[in-house]
Amino acid sequence: MSNGGSSRLQARRLGIDTYREPVVFLRDDCPVCRAEGFQAMSRVEVASGNRRVIATLNVVHGDLVRPTEAGLSEAAWNALAATEGCALELSHPEPVESFSAVRSKIYGTPFTREGLGEVVHDISAGRYSSIELAAFVTSCAGEDMSIDETLALTQAMVAAGTRLAWPQSPVLDKHCVGGLPGNRTTPIVVAIVAAAGMTIPKTSSRAITSPAGTADTMEMLAPVDLTLQHMRRVVEREGGCVVWGGSMALSPADDMLIQVTRPLDFDSPGHLTASIISKKAAAGATHLVVDLPVGATAKVRSAAAAGSLGQRLTLVGREMGIHVEVLQTDGSQPVGRGIGPALEALDVLAVLRGEPQAPQDLRERAILLASRLLDLGGAGSGGGDALARQLLASGAAWKRFQAICEAQGGMRTPPVAPHRREVAATREGRIESIDNRRLSRVAKLAGAPLSPAAGVLLSARLGEAIRPGETLYTVHAQTAGELEYALAYARSHPAVIRIGEPP
Amino acid sequence: MSNGGSSRLQARRLGIDTYREPVVFLRDDCPVCRAEGFQAMSRVEVASGNRRVIATLNVVHGDLVRPTEAGLSEAAWNALAATEGCALELSHPEPVESFSAVRSKIYGTPFTREGLGEVVHDISAGRYSSIELAAFVTSCAGEDMSIDETLALTQAMVAAGTRLAWPQSPVLDKHCVGGLPGNRTTPIVVAIVAAAGMTIPKTSSRAITSPAGTADTMEMLAPVDLTLQHMRRVVEREGGCVVWGGSMALSPADDMLIQVTRPLDFDSPGHLTASIISKKAAAGATHLVVDLPVGATAKVRSAAAAGSLGQRLTLVGREMGIHVEVLQTDGSQPVGRGIGPALEALDVLAVLRGEPQAPQDLRERAILLASRLLDLGGAGSGGGDALARQLLASGAAWKRFQAICEAQGGMRTPPVAPHRREVAATREGRIESIDNRRLSRVAKLAGAPLSPAAGVLLSARLGEAIRPGETLYTVHAQTAGELEYALAYARSHPAVIRIGEPP
Repeated sequence: MSNGGSSRLQARRLGIDTYREPVVFLRDDCPVCRAEGFQAMSRVEVASGNRRVIATLNVVHGDLVRPTEAGLSEAAWNALAATEGCALELSHPEPVESFSAVRSKIYGTPFTREGLGEVVHDISAGRYSSIELAAFVTSCAGEDMSIDETLALTQAMVAAGTRLAWPQSPVLDKHCVGGLPGNRTTPIVVAIVAAAGMTIPKTSSRAITSPAGTADTMEMLAPVDLTLQHMRRVVEREGGCVVWGGSMALSPADDMLIQVTRPLDFDSPGHLTASIISKKAAAGATHLVVDLPVGATAKVRSAAAAGSLGQRLTLVGREMGIHVEVLQTDGSQPVGRGIGPALEALDVLAVLRGEPQAPQDLRERAILLASRLLDLGGAGSGGGDALARQLLASGAAWKRFQAICEAQGGMRTPPVAPHRREVAATREGRIESIDNRRLSRVAKLAGAPLSPAAGVLLSARLGEAIRPGETLYTVHAQTAGELEYALAYARSHPAVIRIGEPP
Repeated sequence: MSNGGSSRLQARRLGIDTYREPVVFLRDDCPVCRAEGFQAMSRVEVASGNRRVIATLNVVHGDLVRPTEAGLSEAAWNALAATEGCALELSHPEPVESFSAVRSKIYGTPFTREGLGEVVHDISAGRYSSIELAAFVTSCAGEDMSIDETLALTQAMVAAGTRLAWPQSPVLDKHCVGGLPGNRTTPIVVAIVAAAGMTIPKTSSRAITSPAGTADTMEMLAPVDLTLQHMRRVVEREGGCVVWGGSMALSPADDMLIQVTRPLDFDSPGHLTASIISKKAAAGATHLVVDLPVGATAKVRSAAAAGSLGQRLTLVGREMGIHVEVLQTDGSQPVGRGIGPALEALDVLAVLRGEPQAPQDLRERAILLASRLLDLGGAGSGGGDALARQLLASGAAWKRFQAICEAQGGMRTPPVAPHRREVAATREGRIESIDNRRLSRVAKLAGAPLSPAAGVLLSARLGEAIRPGETLYTVHAQTAGELEYALAYARSHPAVIRIGEPP
C-alpha cells in the first residue's frame, strides 16, 4: 500500500549482521511506524527504487535511529543495494499466497507441481519469513514427501536459479552428504578426474555450522571466489575446478532454506534429495557420484536410512537427466587427520604429492570416488580404480591440481597456527569411538573456519591401541584464548574420544 | 560452557523491541564472540546472576556496542532483569533435548505425555527459538493430534503455569474463538452473570494482530492491569471482573507460541483446544461457554470444522474437569458497530444502558451466551434467557458493571477520535458481503489499538438495501495522516464491503 510519499524514510546502515534475515529498525515514534500500525516483529516490505525486500521489524526506543530514518541490517542493506540516506518506501507486504500450499500439505494434501513452483519462487524472492520457512521444511520432513513431490521440488529449485551449460559431455560431479569432519576428498577427486581428460566443474560451499566447507579448504590453496566467466576459462583449460558456488545462485531457494534446515537438523530425505540434485542439475552435471557416510555421529545414522535416501537420489536424478551412483561409506570417524581449512588442505597436499605420511583413509576414499566417476564417464572402461591409482602415483593428478590452482588465480601455501597443544590419553586401552560432532565442536571453538589455520589434527584412529600420555589429537589456534576455549571444552567432554579396555 | 570469567561482557540496553524474541548484539571483534565461534543468528545462552535466557545473536560491525559489551533487546533485558553495565556470562546453549520429541512426531510417532511435558516446559523457559516453535506448531497442525495428545498438551500447559483457585463453585467462564471484529460480548456477559449472583472471574487478552482485544476495550472503561490480589478482591465483592490475563502467566508456553501461531495462521484444532482449555483450567473455571463464529472470513470457516473443534473442546474440557458448551454462531459479519477499543466500548455501554440505538446483534449474542452460562451454573434453572433479559432490562447488569469498574479502579469514559470520515456507497444495491479481515485492516491502519479512539464504525449490515451516498462505515483516527492511510487502503480495496444487485 503506497500513498504518495508519506511512507518514505531515509536509509541508514546499522552494520548489524542478522545472517540472511533482513531486519529494519524503526523508532517507536516514527510516523510511518505509527501510521502503518507496524508492530515489533511484524513483516514489512521495504523498497528502494525497483528493489524490494520483506524485512522483520524491530522497534527502537531511543537514539539508535531518528524518527525519519529506517535502520537496515546488512542483509536488508545488501538486498536493496541501499546507499546512506537514500529514500525507502515502507508498506505492508501482501500475504504470501503460496503459503496456502504449505497449509494444505500440513492438512494432508500432497503438494502439486504448481503449488511447489510458487512456494519455491516466493522463497527465492525472500518473501518467506524464517518461521514460514521452518513450517515449510517441517511439512517436507520425515517420509512425507513422495518421489513425485521430491521431483517437483527439485525442478522448482532448478527453475528458480541460474543454470550452467557446458559444451562437453559427460560432465562429472561428486557430492558428500555432510557430517563427517575432514572428509576433504573433493580437490583430490577433481585432480584425478581432470588429469584423466574428463570434465568436472565443481562448485562447493563454505562452512555454515561445520569447522570447514570444501570452499574454505580449497581457498587455502587457491582463490575460489571466481566469476562464472573465470570458472569457465579454468574448466576449458584444465577440465576441472573447485570454486565457491555461493555467488552463482544455482539454487537460491535452497540457500534461503539452509538458515532453518541446519538448526532444525531434520531427517528430511525429500528436501535433502531436492537440495542435492537441484544444485547438480543447475551446475550442468550429467553423472554424479554421492559419498554417503553412515555412522552413529554422522548425518545419516543407519544403513536403512542410507538405502532409502540413495534410492531417492537415484530416481530423482534419473528424472533430471543425471546418472547417480551412491556409495555408502564408513562414517564412524573423521577421514584424514586435519579438521579445519588449513589442516585439511595440508592433508590434501600430502595425498596429491604422494607423501608417505599422507593419510591413507583419505587417499583410499578419494580413489574410490574418482574410480567410480572415471568408470561412469567412460574413461576407466571398468578399470577406473587402476587408472585413478596410476594418475595419483605418477604425479599426473598433482600436476593437474597445480595447474587448476594457477588457473584459479595462483597457488597458495596454507598458514600454520602459532598456538598448538596436544590432548593425550589418560589411560591404556583401545580407541573405542570418536564423536564426529564433538570433535567438530573442538575445532570450531579453536577458531575454525574464521581463523583458517585453527582446528584439530587427529592422531587416534578407531581400534588402535593407545597408552597414557600418547597424543589423541592436537588443537591448533590463532590465539591463546581460543586455544584455552577449545581445551576447556575438551576437558569437560572426555567422550570426544572414548578409550575402551586394552586388547 | 564456562571457563572462569573470560566469557564475561557488560550489559547494555539498546532499547530495541523484538517482541518476545530475546536478541543479543555483539561486536564482530568482541573476544567472546570470536573465542566461542558465535556466528550471526546462532543461539547464545546469556546469564546474569542466576537468571538466564537463550537469545539470538546479531553481530555488529561498527559502534553500536563496544567489544567489551553485549547489547540486549528489550525482551532479553527484561528476562535477565539486567542493569546497565552488569556482568553477563555468555555460552553455547546445550541443544534442547526435548526437540527430539518434535522430530519423532514429524517422522510419524505420536507425542507421549512425557515428551509433551518436556517440550512445553522448555518452551515456557524460553529455550525454543522461533523456528523451533514454528516446527512444533506445524507438527501439531491439521488433524495430526489425537484427543490423547491434545489432552496431554493441555495438561502440560497447565502444569507449566500459575493456577488460580476460587473458594466458590461453580466458576463460570466464556471464550470466543477469534476472527470476528467488534464481537465484544464479554463485558456484557460478565455483568449479567455477576448480577445473577454467580462467579465469573474473566481474564482477557490484548490485541496482537487485531484492532482490539477484550482487555483493550475494557481498559476504555476501567483499569485492567490488576494484581492477582486485586483481582481476587474484585471477584469477592462483585462476583465478576474483566482483567488483562497477560501478567498472570496462566499458560506461559501458550504466550510464547502465539508469536508463531498468529502469523502462520494454521488450522490447528489440537493446539487451539489446548490453548483455550489450558487457560480456562488455569483460571479455575468449572463451566465454560464457547462462542464459535463460523463464516467465510472468520477464523473457523465451515460448520464441519466447527463441529470437529467443538467436539474436541468438549472432550478435553471434560477430562480437565470443565463442563464445556460450544455455540456455533453467525460469523459472516462483525457484531456490533464499533471496531477498535473505544468504539467497541461505546457499543458495550449502549447495550448495558439499554439505549434504543444500541446494536441489537451484540445485545442478542451477549444474552445468548449469558443465558447458557446461567443455565449451566444453575441460576437460570432452564430459564436463563428470561433471566438474562430481565437483568439487562432492569438495569441490574448495568449497575453491577459500574460496580465492577469501580472495584477495578474507577470507571472511565472512552475517548472520541478527532478525525472522522465516512465511506459511502457508490451504487445502489444490497449489502452482499462484509470482509471481516479487511475491515479489521482498515481499523488498524486508522491507528487501532495503539490509538484507542481509532477504528471503524460500521453502518452497513448484510442484506440491507443501500443507495449511492449512504454511509457504509465511518473511519475514526487520532491524526489526519492515519485517517488518510486507512482511507487509501479502503479506496484500493472496494471489496471490503460488497454491494450486490438491488432487490
